[in-house]
Amino acid sequence: MSVLADRVERVRAAMGAEGVDVVLLSVGPDLPYLTGYEAMPLERLTMLVLPRDGDATLVVPRLEAPRVVEQPDVFTVLPWTETEDPVALVADRAQGAAVAAIGDHTWARFLIDLITAMPATTFRRASAVVGPIRMRKDPDEIAALRAAGAAADRVAAQLQAGKISLEGRTEAAVSADISNRLLAEGHERVNFAIVASGPNGASPHHSAGDRIIQRGDVVVCDFGGRLDGYCSDITRTVAVGEPPAEVADAYAVLLEAQQAAVAAAVVGTPCAEVDAVARRIITAAGYGERFIHRTGHGIGMEEHEDPYIVAGNDLTLAPGHAFSVEPGIYTPGRWGMRLEDIVVATAEGPDAMNRVPHELAVIG
Amino acid sequence: MSVLADRVERVRAAMGAEGVDVVLLSVGPDLPYLTGYEAMPLERLTMLVLPRDGDATLVVPRLEAPRVVEQPDVFTVLPWTETEDPVALVADRAQGAAVAAIGDHTWARFLIDLITAMPATTFRRASAVVGPIRMRKDPDEIAALRAAGAAADRVAAQLQAGKISLEGRTEAAVSADISNRLLAEGHERVNFAIVASGPNGASPHHSAGDRIIQRGDVVVCDFGGRLDGYCSDITRTVAVGEPPAEVADAYAVLLEAQQAAVAAAVVGTPCAEVDAVARRIITAAGYGERFIHRTGHGIGMEEHEDPYIVAGNDLTLAPGHAFSVEPGIYTPGRWGMRLEDIVVATAEGPDAMNRVPHELAVIG
Repeated sequence: MSVLADRVERVRAAMGAEGVDVVLLSVGPDLPYLTGYEAMPLERLTMLVLPRDGDATLVVPRLEAPRVVEQPDVFTVLPWTETEDPVALVADRAQGAAVAAIGDHTWARFLIDLITAMPATTFRRASAVVGPIRMRKDPDEIAALRAAGAAADRVAAQLQAGKISLEGRTEAAVSADISNRLLAEGHERVNFAIVASGPNGASPHHSAGDRIIQRGDVVVCDFGGRLDGYCSDITRTVAVGEPPAEVADAYAVLLEAQQAAVAAAVVGTPCAEVDAVARRIITAAGYGERFIHRTGHGIGMEEHEDPYIVAGNDLTLAPGHAFSVEPGIYTPGRWGMRLEDIVVATAEGPDAMNRVPHELAVIG
Repeated sequence: MSVLADRVERVRAAMGAEGVDVVLLSVGPDLPYLTGYEAMPLERLTMLVLPRDGDATLVVPRLEAPRVVEQPDVFTVLPWTETEDPVALVADRAQGAAVAAIGDHTWARFLIDLITAMPATTFRRASAVVGPIRMRKDPDEIAALRAAGAAADRVAAQLQAGKISLEGRTEAAVSADISNRLLAEGHERVNFAIVASGPNGASPHHSAGDRIIQRGDVVVCDFGGRLDGYCSDITRTVAVGEPPAEVADAYAVLLEAQQAAVAAAVVGTPCAEVDAVARRIITAAGYGERFIHRTGHGIGMEEHEDPYIVAGNDLTLAPGHAFSVEPGIYTPGRWGMRLEDIVVATAEGPDAMNRVPHELAVIG
């Protein structure tokens, strides 16, 4: 059985367990995970209609159809022309479904139209049936995450070695430099390259801007992309010149918290506990109010996916779960710092996809 | 009144006319159109709650809040922390709404959650109230489209002049070259750069791949990006070496059809008629079955938006409507061709945003 057909079979088993009659997938990673085909995020609807029993159909705009690599053991292709109504085609093939599960990223406009076209159907999130399967990466997927992580590591090593100049350049220029290096190291796409210097570092999702990096700055560099369909994501914080004692002190706490959380990411531990391990250390050192986000997010075909490493998430880690461990400390108006690796939970313990040094690198 | 406040006031008037009590906007262009703030496409919900009467609230993840530029005359900011439920915050502020209009691009998972949290509310597409307003571009928006079109034109001119080498290079390499030139000419982002050579040209949305472009190929180059928030989109087809008569003959028909459709795009004409003008010419010449897509799409903050130039669309063109005119002829297994300009309907007639020559350029 092909990898795709095996995944579809497991999704169908989950549909049975969850009482879902049909899964409807459009844009987002669930569709390529099951079919190998990625829908373009366009107003022309692409949708896989996957009933619990019976054949699956990929409803696709006629002019996209040549891009579909057919998988006869998984689905048949139904192209629609410009004057047809794709929602009616989907509703027709999903006829009689009491419960439909719709892909999480599907545009709301299509869900609104489907609700109208299928008034007797209850809609749920497809992540209820596809999510738990996608969450457990198989060995090929872990190898892909490792390759993406190694490529990001090579850029991080260049940063730590001072090969990416910082002082006197704008954040935007450094961000573009990092992006080019991610591509040069094999990424097919850059997803983001945050460069947050000095006071901007206190905004965790700061957009690299025109601030010129100066001696004395602490700079948060958080970047990642996609390589062979799987994502990288790494954060390293560097100091331009020797940092003041308060920065070095806080960084020592951050490093301890991050390493402890990575070590805690063993199979059977609740996600919330991994978050708590990092948070307890940071809080005990007096920085609890400055750690303003969760400890991590799952990663795979998406940069952010299940499982989330956050208070309240009782899910226990299982082999193949892949996620970031990225605590941070943020001092508004002055500086921020974050340290992030991707980790895979395995029967042998936490397996880090990032291996470059974790210490605060001092540049120049 | 600020531009944003004026737009919000017009949306509120449309809400009254359409019986919509609250508009809920997340990812996608409607949010920046009304607030200046673009939501990140993430699992952490950002959502503007815009009631017909009363104050609007931007519910935003706490760690994104520093990125928000406040607009006190338009909305107030409500940051939520990692352990809060943003859907509950939205539902609370939308309390009592009988009809809610939700942004077209909102992820289905959030709509599913909102439907659960607001069981007495009927949901509609926000495009019903925001779309007609966004569709009519104001002079500043038209200037932005013109600047984006001029930047794309400069790249198209380089292509037509043979400055972008084709023969012996892969489609992917040419696509990367075009992308870099779009950025060099001022685009802040490349949205796509289709390079479809020889038989690949028959797939309108072909992804540039590893096919090496050869003498004798017809090459469809369709590219665009975003500049100051507004999109460019142009297609020029070039021949590598003198094309055979059948290509030249078909191109003459394509050129006539495209120019006639542009000329037909006058205020008061139905969108469907602009499509029909191009289609009649291509059909009369015997190529009707090979013109497998609509004639065009609206353009603005999105690459594809209302109005669509397609059979069945009775909407009549109004001043400020901006859209592509891009007929094509596709011969499976052999070649394809397409010719595209962006056009704005004005009281003085169709105003083309692209001005580079329309003839089939022969390179080398």
